[in-house]
Amino acid sequence: MPHSRIPEAAPAGLRQQPQPRLVTGTGPVIGRALQILGTFTAQHPLLSLSELARKTGLPVSTVHRMLGELLAWGALERDEHGRYRVGLRLWEVGSLAPRTQGLRERALPYLEDLAALTRENVQLAVREESEIVFVERIGSSSAVPTLTRVGGRLAITATGVGLVLLAHAPAHVQDAALARRIQRHTPFTLTDSGQLRRVLAQVRTCGYAVSDRQLSADTLSVAAPVTTAAGEVAAAVSLVVRHGSMPVGALADLVRTSSRAISRVLHTPIS
Amino acid sequence: MPHSRIPEAAPAGLRQQPQPRLVTGTGPVIGRALQILGTFTAQHPLLSLSELARKTGLPVSTVHRMLGELLAWGALERDEHGRYRVGLRLWEVGSLAPRTQGLRERALPYLEDLAALTRENVQLAVREESEIVFVERIGSSSAVPTLTRVGGRLAITATGVGLVLLAHAPAHVQDAALARRIQRHTPFTLTDSGQLRRVLAQVRTCGYAVSDRQLSADTLSVAAPVTTAAGEVAAAVSLVVRHGSMPVGALADLVRTSSRAISRVLHTPIS
Repeated sequence: MPHSRIPEAAPAGLRQQPQPRLVTGTGPVIGRALQILGTFTAQHPLLSLSELARKTGLPVSTVHRMLGELLAWGALERDEHGRYRVGLRLWEVGSLAPRTQGLRERALPYLEDLAALTRENVQLAVREESEIVFVERIGSSSAVPTLTRVGGRLAITATGVGLVLLAHAPAHVQDAALARRIQRHTPFTLTDSGQLRRVLAQVRTCGYAVSDRQLSADTLSVAAPVTTAAGEVAAAVSLVVRHGSMPVGALADLVRTSSRAISRVLHTPIS
Repeated sequence: MPHSRIPEAAPAGLRQQPQPRLVTGTGPVIGRALQILGTFTAQHPLLSLSELARKTGLPVSTVHRMLGELLAWGALERDEHGRYRVGLRLWEVGSLAPRTQGLRERALPYLEDLAALTRENVQLAVREESEIVFVERIGSSSAVPTLTRVGGRLAITATGVGLVLLAHAPAHVQDAALARRIQRHTPFTLTDSGQLRRVLAQVRTCGYAVSDRQLSADTLSVAAPVTTAAGEVAAAVSLVVRHGSMPVGALADLVRTSSRAISRVLHTPIS
């Protein structure tokens, strides 16, 4: 495979699964249909009827009837082996989400400039509760491999974008993120909540975050916030480079220049 | 606004709306929930309760109850003014669609190479019945402005990617596309079905399609097919340049090199 710098799925230990929602098999019918949609993951993008029934805990006949409605609308499709997959129409509706696709469309020219200038990995992420979701990643074939996938999630305290988004999150979100047991990926992973609180305070003071070899032994990530007209942090931009390849100060200047340009364009109402 | 090369929404006359699905207000509850989701468009990404009730033709009380379930799961979110918008969780699930996001992730390095090499617009599209949906677009700030939006639709007979996808579509899809009245955007727009059938035959013979000023008076698009291991055309790649800026033969060589590289990587199973 000529290009393999973006693993389709990160190793299980490095991925955070979306937190389970309180939708049970006995809930209302819309909840059950959404439960079926939520069963598809990057690791399992193709599922059979029996797999869907097993994973949702719903009777095969119920799942079969609901699949009929989801297929008719185009939320799901079937592949040549009869397995179900997320459909093009659901992707189209999902691509209307202002917090992700709208942001992505407006930020893309600046992310492309930053990637072309540095030939490094550029990432754009937003926060969902105490987790981060990657909205875009651009990398050159010469850049250090990263674990990011668009629509994927990674540990909030171990990434540059995560530290920026957590630093500006409400106190209860910070408490929830720091109360969890934090997995150690490398000897440099920060796991102590007291130390992480000091890092978050520093991020707010400096205006950027550095994650130094926290996720893998050869990468360094520098991130800065994207702010709305109301001054709220809506997203974070990062450059992920090979550790030691560039001074942190130079990276911080680059990423802050880009994140401020994106913030400025977000302040302009969509005509 | 510093960057304005990608209009948020193409002029109404140039956009094709997704064809209406046969989901009525009296249908099953899942169909009605999907009907609510389908009401959001690029032109109307934010909708109030009363707008949703009006557009779906469902009672306000019914819509309100279903919105509760859609909000609880994260399919929709509310903005600061209480309006509804497509939620991050629906975007996440949508991003698992193998026909779009999976294709996009694998094609992106090649599209980026092509854009960096040419400094022109590079587009990736798939077919949905007799319409095309744009999965990715990359452009430099010096490239000619285009009407594409990721997740958006444009006329299938007036674009390079559309001609490629239609040329390799089943006969009934071609018949449906050519039976429609084809809108004239410029004096060069092909509207005669006999002439279009000859163009489609030529596309199959040459291995690429040219749309010359069909959509706007200053753009030329050259497109080539992306094929699966089974030899089916899964997508099309195009270069969109200013008319007269580059010879068509050179553009065809570039776009075919890229589409073949993407086809090759699609033939490698996802590990």
